[in-house]
Amino acid sequence: MEYRYLGRSGLKISALSLGGWITYGGHVDEDEAFSCFKAAYDTGINFFDTAENYSAGKAEVILGKAIKKFGWKQNDLVISTKVYFGLNNSAHPERPLNNNGLSRKHVIEGVNQSLARLDLPYVDIVFAHRPDRDTPMEEIVRAFNYLIDSGKTFYWGTSEWSAVEIADAWRVADRLGLVGPLAEQPQYNLLVRGKVEDEFRWLYEKYGTGLTVFSPLKQGILTGKYNGQDAPPPGSRLAEAKDKFTVAYSKTFGNDVWRRELDQVAKLKPLADKLGVTLAQLALAWVLKNPNVSSVITGASRPAQLQENLRALEVAEKLTPDVLKEIDDALGNAFVNPPRRLG
Amino acid sequence: MEYRYLGRSGLKISALSLGGWITYGGHVDEDEAFSCFKAAYDTGINFFDTAENYSAGKAEVILGKAIKKFGWKQNDLVISTKVYFGLNNSAHPERPLNNNGLSRKHVIEGVNQSLARLDLPYVDIVFAHRPDRDTPMEEIVRAFNYLIDSGKTFYWGTSEWSAVEIADAWRVADRLGLVGPLAEQPQYNLLVRGKVEDEFRWLYEKYGTGLTVFSPLKQGILTGKYNGQDAPPPGSRLAEAKDKFTVAYSKTFGNDVWRRELDQVAKLKPLADKLGVTLAQLALAWVLKNPNVSSVITGASRPAQLQENLRALEVAEKLTPDVLKEIDDALGNAFVNPPRRLG
Amino acid sequence: MEYRYLGRSGLKISALSLGGWITYGGHVDEDEAFSCFKAAYDTGINFFDTAENYSAGKAEVILGKAIKKFGWKQNDLVISTKVYFGLNNSAHPERPLNNNGLSRKHVIEGVNQSLARLDLPYVDIVFAHRPDRDTPMEEIVRAFNYLIDSGKTFYWGTSEWSAVEIADAWRVADRLGLVGPLAEQPQYNLLVRGKVEDEFRWLYEKYGTGLTVFSPLKQGILTGKYNGQDAPPPGSRLAEAKDKFTVAYSKTFGNDVWRRELDQVAKLKPLADKLGVTLAQLALAWVLKNPNVSSVITGASRPAQLQENLRALEVAEKLTPDVLKEIDDALGNAFVNPPRRLG
Amino acid sequence: MEYRYLGRSGLKISALSLGGWITYGGHVDEDEAFSCFKAAYDTGINFFDTAENYSAGKAEVILGKAIKKFGWKQNDLVISTKVYFGLNNSAHPERPLNNNGLSRKHVIEGVNQSLARLDLPYVDIVFAHRPDRDTPMEEIVRAFNYLIDSGKTFYWGTSEWSAVEIADAWRVADRLGLVGPLAEQPQYNLLVRGKVEDEFRWLYEKYGTGLTVFSPLKQGILTGKYNGQDAPPPGSRLAEAKDKFTVAYSKTFGNDVWRRELDQVAKLKPLADKLGVTLAQLALAWVLKNPNVSSVITGASRPAQLQENLRALEVAEKLTPDVLKEIDDALGNAFVNPPRRLG
Repeated sequence: MEYRYLGRSGLKISALSLGGWITYGGHVDEDEAFSCFKAAYDTGINFFDTAENYSAGKAEVILGKAIKKFGWKQNDLVISTKVYFGLNNSAHPERPLNNNGLSRKHVIEGVNQSLARLDLPYVDIVFAHRPDRDTPMEEIVRAFNYLIDSGKTFYWGTSEWSAVEIADAWRVADRLGLVGPLAEQPQYNLLVRGKVEDEFRWLYEKYGTGLTVFSPLKQGILTGKYNGQDAPPPGSRLAEAKDKFTVAYSKTFGNDVWRRELDQVAKLKPLADKLGVTLAQLALAWVLKNPNVSSVITGASRPAQLQENLRALEVAEKLTPDVLKEIDDALGNAFVNPPRRLG
Repeated sequence: MEYRYLGRSGLKISALSLGGWITYGGHVDEDEAFSCFKAAYDTGINFFDTAENYSAGKAEVILGKAIKKFGWKQNDLVISTKVYFGLNNSAHPERPLNNNGLSRKHVIEGVNQSLARLDLPYVDIVFAHRPDRDTPMEEIVRAFNYLIDSGKTFYWGTSEWSAVEIADAWRVADRLGLVGPLAEQPQYNLLVRGKVEDEFRWLYEKYGTGLTVFSPLKQGILTGKYNGQDAPPPGSRLAEAKDKFTVAYSKTFGNDVWRRELDQVAKLKPLADKLGVTLAQLALAWVLKNPNVSSVITGASRPAQLQENLRALEVAEKLTPDVLKEIDDALGNAFVNPPRRLG
Repeated sequence: MEYRYLGRSGLKISALSLGGWITYGGHVDEDEAFSCFKAAYDTGINFFDTAENYSAGKAEVILGKAIKKFGWKQNDLVISTKVYFGLNNSAHPERPLNNNGLSRKHVIEGVNQSLARLDLPYVDIVFAHRPDRDTPMEEIVRAFNYLIDSGKTFYWGTSEWSAVEIADAWRVADRLGLVGPLAEQPQYNLLVRGKVEDEFRWLYEKYGTGLTVFSPLKQGILTGKYNGQDAPPPGSRLAEAKDKFTVAYSKTFGNDVWRRELDQVAKLKPLADKLGVTLAQLALAWVLKNPNVSSVITGASRPAQLQENLRALEVAEKLTPDVLKEIDDALGNAFVNPPRRLG
Repeated sequence: MEYRYLGRSGLKISALSLGGWITYGGHVDEDEAFSCFKAAYDTGINFFDTAENYSAGKAEVILGKAIKKFGWKQNDLVISTKVYFGLNNSAHPERPLNNNGLSRKHVIEGVNQSLARLDLPYVDIVFAHRPDRDTPMEEIVRAFNYLIDSGKTFYWGTSEWSAVEIADAWRVADRLGLVGPLAEQPQYNLLVRGKVEDEFRWLYEKYGTGLTVFSPLKQGILTGKYNGQDAPPPGSRLAEAKDKFTVAYSKTFGNDVWRRELDQVAKLKPLADKLGVTLAQLALAWVLKNPNVSSVITGASRPAQLQENLRALEVAEKLTPDVLKEIDDALGNAFVNPPRRLG
């Protein structure tokens, strides 16, 4: 396993990590989930990512059980969770009110409930799962600092915030002598590059922002398994998923966006073949090559899938500057930033 | 004339203002320039915008002469200039070095030279004409605050900075107890909407950023005078311009971008006709309707052109929510941001 | 016993103190260790120094047991421990990752584990056992302040940091209104003088840095017991030691460095004889004479050794300015700094 | 000419620059000095370094005269001077009192007198010519900030300060929201490497410290002209110099230090021959290769000497990593710092 610092911090995390948005506590049963966690830990993965709303809280419960079951110690692990969408905690899901968003009330109540589900005294990182534009930034920054000061987490981060919101969080933190967000968790893959390569480009040096990126395979599109089809076949995960995020995405099935994405995947196939690797491995390895990425969050329904993903670490070594250029040329979606200092 | 506050400040500026990037000191002769300045002043325009590099410094010289000639007083005017591209100040234009950029040295030396050309003791606003990513933000913020503290300007702003750079300037200013940038000067018109409507959308409330926007007619395209042509006709300003900015733009003449823009202008024609106004008036009036815009900088080679532009103030009153929606529907380039607060 | 303030603080510690890097929990058995602790306490030593990695955690365990066994109260003791090298806490010593260094995670987890081993709710001082140049200084300073704010320690310090790193920690602490490092723990003895007398010379007045120095006898060399030998004789502690630090030092055995050091010890012998004291007592007494030293950490495998060391307090009174000058002349390794203020 | 940023600032200075400690205003007559200044300017050197005590103030007078004579403008120049040793300004040189050191009184009075001698309204950088350990750091930092705030200089720096003093200046500056020292001016050459490569190594990243280094040829030793001699021959500059610095250095003539230095120069000769360059060019080029060096201050008594020095810019391109390693191996005085971040 390769390890990297999470942004400008002293925290070391595995370059590949295990997440599980709708898997653990969801469509994967408990024993299979335990097998995946164990396989991950045994291959040196130390970073496990979850969230209060993954499988309505069940993802946290099962991760906590695994830690107990295998006798793992927190000093050997890096655990992150996320607070924002805590609908499931409310007795009135139709009227979530303060069971949602980034008010001081929900940030603190939500994380206390996450720790209860995980059965842990603290986690390593808590992410703000989305921006909350209705709560003042000062309230948000102070709430996460409260979590740090009270020992419930060591670091805090953001997920799917805009660059200017992250900069604003740092403005508030700097003015008040508080701790700013250490990491951001965006989507990043061969088809979705803008945030990481363009919008965030000034954050890395200015604020030391680290990235733990999700959807490296863009919900499976980058494995090539949907190529040649107008839409996900009945029974496939994309076709069956009922979560809001996938339902929104499903509106593209069969339309121009869908076709354009499959076309781009098709262009990558000859490059993967030439390297003797699968499309999925190429896609994961490509994300690993970005030096601003601290960890690539992968999912796995079976230990075998995880082993398959791990091979991306070796594949990354094959991605020379020439190969990376071939990929950019094939996709035509790279962001080119001008060089900075005097030659 | 209508007046607006410049962002979150007490400074009142005319909603239409007079700029002159390549006109005054350039292709318009001195007497005609004086006539334009006088006509503007007489119709109530109080905000005049220039820059150290407009016509290689001559734009500032002629504006200063006009102020003297007509006996105007600074308390009745709002003058802005911009520092960044001070090639003209160097004895060695081929080696501009510190005559350029936003180092403390050039910000202070450049503005001193601008004031000498204007023959004024101070201006009201100095804009940083572009971001300088090679100079530390703290150096930049401190340099503009020096200008304020030494009485050379009352406010400072930015031009064509990214939202995250503006946020970062505020971070540094807030941390050090200094003054942040009050205004941004971007391009904004019916064809170029992204910065003002999307990227900057959080700045207005957070930092009180005011906008003084340029190119409301997108270099004449929005007057409709190029419609039906593959490229600007010989002799037109777009065809003859030799400045870097227009030369770069000229690469689009005749290509898909050019045609798409002319198509969009064509779609606006029936709407203008229905309102009984020219395309130019519609375009200017539309910019005026954006409440985040403090002033729309217009150019004029003749007083008559200015009078024509001024009618946009009345036209703006005809732009009801329904009409604005028709425009958005015709162009299909609006940015829709979700409503914020509860209720 | 003589007591001194620890740097610029109100904390009073014994000028001689008891440490135990590889002794307690290591080659000295538990009963003998208890005897040493008791003898130290009974002669008025109140400062006991340990570390998370001394004898892989066992040094802390045995010190904690002694405190319980003899019914000592924390208000009569000053206990320090150190965090950095916590390999022993990891289930995977070959992959220590976050069980090491000065990340917020390890500083807090490591000290919590130290307190568990000591079975104490808090210690008086936690030292950062080495600089961690891969963790931002702000993260380090904040982590130690968390320990203070949460009542786990009263003060924090550094060990074997460079002067510029200590100054930088104070810069961060001062900027954020946090507590800087109170004390540094370097090596200091008649043969190793540079850090304390030269590099650190500006720290004492600027930051009030106190010193708790280790290796006053330079691992026994200054007792003279190795003189006349090419290398430590088989069975001696230097010959048998397996720790990394001594193994690195062992590379000098028999070479020029080794011979030069024994030569210097030989030059001290006549001076010790003239004063009627042993070389070890002279060496300890000499360290005590440095007014920037708050405490000299000594080791003892037997109570008798401790009593022998304690005589250094009386010997120190014999070290008049003339005698100190004789020592400097004999060794030729003094640092002479110019006098400062106007005469 | 090659240009570099001065540390972490937006100021661009020539990689080779012209200084003149005992030359201009000293043993070189005015016309020859003017020829040197002109030759420097014409080859693109924009950075000229002087000090209040160089040739008792005459160096500043002659530099000011040259600027007037040739009609140079300050926006095309970067001028630095230094304050500390202003003995010459006192009517009572035997009782300098406040004509010396870094009290607020002398920093401000001294720089005002320097500006009068230069006949300039401001300089670009003022260096504190030595540390003044009798004046509180806060007084020093505030005095230099006064110079910046009152427009007498754009930046301030230090010369021959220790790393911990520079760090302490930053501590004071950060605590008070003031500007810290941008640059340090130390000696640096093939024979004197410790400060730049070892002591200062943490400053570059932490504080963005730039270096303008002096004595790249170590007062001529590195030209090889003294090799084969027990001491500088009568009539040579080293033999005739009467300034305190050279007189102190002269104590080494003929002794072990002298011989060791000449031995090291001799070892460089074959390397210079192999590259087909002079020893002086090799020595200058080697200093240029250090990326932490912003400018190498050279002296010249005649324009021809300057042209000779300028060839070092091309020679630097020949100093490949392999050649640099050969030099390190020959001299045996390189500082090797361990790599930092995780591999």
